[in-house]
Amino acid sequence: MEQQFSPITDEEIFEAHIGGKLSVELTAPINNKRDLSIAYTPGVAKVSSAIFENPAYAESHTWASRLVVVVSDGTAVLGLGDIGPAGSLPVMEGKSALFKRFAGLNSIPLVIDTHDVDEIVETLVRLKHSFGAVNLEDIAAPRCFELEQKVIEALDMPVMHDDQHGTAVVVLAALVNAAKVVNKELTDLKVVISGAGSAGLAVSDILVHVGIKNVLVLDSKGVLSSTRTDLSGKKQEVANQTNPHKIEGKLSEALIDADAVIGLSTASFEVEDLKKMAKDSIIFALSNPNPEINPAVARQIGAVVATGRSDFPNQINNVLAFPGIFLGALDAKARRITTEMKLAAAYAIAALVEDELSADLIIPSPFDERVTPAVANAVMTKA
Amino acid sequence: MEQQFSPITDEEIFEAHIGGKLSVELTAPINNKRDLSIAYTPGVAKVSSAIFENPAYAESHTWASRLVVVVSDGTAVLGLGDIGPAGSLPVMEGKSALFKRFAGLNSIPLVIDTHDVDEIVETLVRLKHSFGAVNLEDIAAPRCFELEQKVIEALDMPVMHDDQHGTAVVVLAALVNAAKVVNKELTDLKVVISGAGSAGLAVSDILVHVGIKNVLVLDSKGVLSSTRTDLSGKKQEVANQTNPHKIEGKLSEALIDADAVIGLSTASFEVEDLKKMAKDSIIFALSNPNPEINPAVARQIGAVVATGRSDFPNQINNVLAFPGIFLGALDAKARRITTEMKLAAAYAIAALVEDELSADLIIPSPFDERVTPAVANAVMTKA
Repeated sequence: MEQQFSPITDEEIFEAHIGGKLSVELTAPINNKRDLSIAYTPGVAKVSSAIFENPAYAESHTWASRLVVVVSDGTAVLGLGDIGPAGSLPVMEGKSALFKRFAGLNSIPLVIDTHDVDEIVETLVRLKHSFGAVNLEDIAAPRCFELEQKVIEALDMPVMHDDQHGTAVVVLAALVNAAKVVNKELTDLKVVISGAGSAGLAVSDILVHVGIKNVLVLDSKGVLSSTRTDLSGKKQEVANQTNPHKIEGKLSEALIDADAVIGLSTASFEVEDLKKMAKDSIIFALSNPNPEINPAVARQIGAVVATGRSDFPNQINNVLAFPGIFLGALDAKARRITTEMKLAAAYAIAALVEDELSADLIIPSPFDERVTPAVANAVMTKA
Repeated sequence: MEQQFSPITDEEIFEAHIGGKLSVELTAPINNKRDLSIAYTPGVAKVSSAIFENPAYAESHTWASRLVVVVSDGTAVLGLGDIGPAGSLPVMEGKSALFKRFAGLNSIPLVIDTHDVDEIVETLVRLKHSFGAVNLEDIAAPRCFELEQKVIEALDMPVMHDDQHGTAVVVLAALVNAAKVVNKELTDLKVVISGAGSAGLAVSDILVHVGIKNVLVLDSKGVLSSTRTDLSGKKQEVANQTNPHKIEGKLSEALIDADAVIGLSTASFEVEDLKKMAKDSIIFALSNPNPEINPAVARQIGAVVATGRSDFPNQINNVLAFPGIFLGALDAKARRITTEMKLAAAYAIAALVEDELSADLIIPSPFDERVTPAVANAVMTKA
């Protein structure tokens, strides 16, 4: 168990949020009329004219090309659900703060007061000269799948819905190392994913993509299966690519002989169900702030346990992935964030702890300064 | 003549713009897991929930309520015309930098890739929870008038098109003091405004509002007059409120016996025309970077000369007004920027140099640290 930090009071949290968590600063001081004539009129006219003549100057001589907008409609904020754009803003400010802290990238939150996918796309298209990358955040499934696809098609810049792909990358990194700890072949694992929201379906995608043959995904009604008649869209697609043995039932059935379970919903894990898993089981209880099972209890059953919390070992945290993914894509001037980039990011994260691998160390700390450069470099090699 | 600074090279200007002029920073460091748990999950969920329960928390506990967006469609950028949203971005970044430098306000540029007024309004309405004030900038007339009106009606926050009202406030401040220097009554002045774009028409409005009875405004065809049949919209409105003697003709006719001329277009002032003005004439040659007449030449004719340039005395610069206007409106939690606020701002600026008034000092320097607080306080008293 990692050292726990001193308890955080509500008062302390609210105090830390007064006035927000971001500040816009000047990159060079404006202390006299000469400075003003360079940064503003008349000097700035030269740069504006240069961009008009040659749009490449916009990339090199404004902040936009490396500015990440964190975009949300506030429909799936943390575990809080649809609390609206204003409610989502503290999370988006936090995300922008993490972009600066972990990747040195400028980032601003834009929260959008519409649930209409096409209106969100249209808004971003109108604003496209203002920024250089889009991190979609906390947008409810299934709308998030259509939205991400449409934004990718509409904009010539890196776009990623982090709740899907950031999660998928970090889960894959952790699972690669967990399989090594228990001496099992990754692709032979039977993996159960509890939760068929944006994260669950994206995790399924990446696991199938790396060749794991027996993946089961559960929504509130049970295991997704091509035999079910109540599915559509992305869920249907995932159902067709998983559950090769057409298993039916709830989590208790799905977990029989499973090698790994990945919790990505609020549905709890029962001790008796976890005990049905194969020997040396891997338990990722990633619901936040309350894991699907007490990790100390899970550790008595499974061989490797991970959570989303910072006060237990093996914290599966998206901050390991998204700063480096965007940094690498922007450094490479990539126009897309591809599956190959995401896979490279996952393996780069996993590799950082390869030498010191243990049941309680399958993933680096978010504050391991090697992480972002390693992820960014891995992404760049695939650009 | 003020001390001229060393010449600025193009190389220096371009160098200063590499990567843009703005940076987003954290208001508090995130150095460990405890910090992360306060600024991001799980701590941030408390603040998001609080906003959902009580929207007032969004005002106090996010950056949005005091964030000024600088919005342009790039259609009237400086004297460069319609160079598009990307071309306008360096100017908007500069403007955001000035908001921080002169008012301590966070500001971000949003450039919008549409010329459609309703689409710009719609975009801002969708994003309204992301910011707390709107500075419209470099939007071509006559669209800017309709746009500003619609944005004001659509958003419950301070909105101002600075090219109109910032200019009007600073010109009024300078004219109040110039009238004192030449010992003439402000309201008795015959004032000629050369230029009927956004600035010219807004200056006319504010001068008429303070009671100046004889204002003439010229577009490229000559003096605006209620007798002209080619006018519509805002120009028609201004024509009806000015030119009481129904004068027709060009600048050379309009300037006969005029007490003040205010250049707000690229049309030059001819020496022979300026000589037709009344004794102790006031000449504001505000076109930038090239004034309508060489100010040294103008000074041989007129009693008071002002320009938009930083390297001559009496620089009429919007930076004297907009930072304090927005700061005052936001500090007062005002939902509108009213005419009374603009007038109060103008008189506050004028008052700062009242004691040391001279032909070469009718307006404070942009770097006079008293300006923004004085303007903000004046605005607050009218809120």
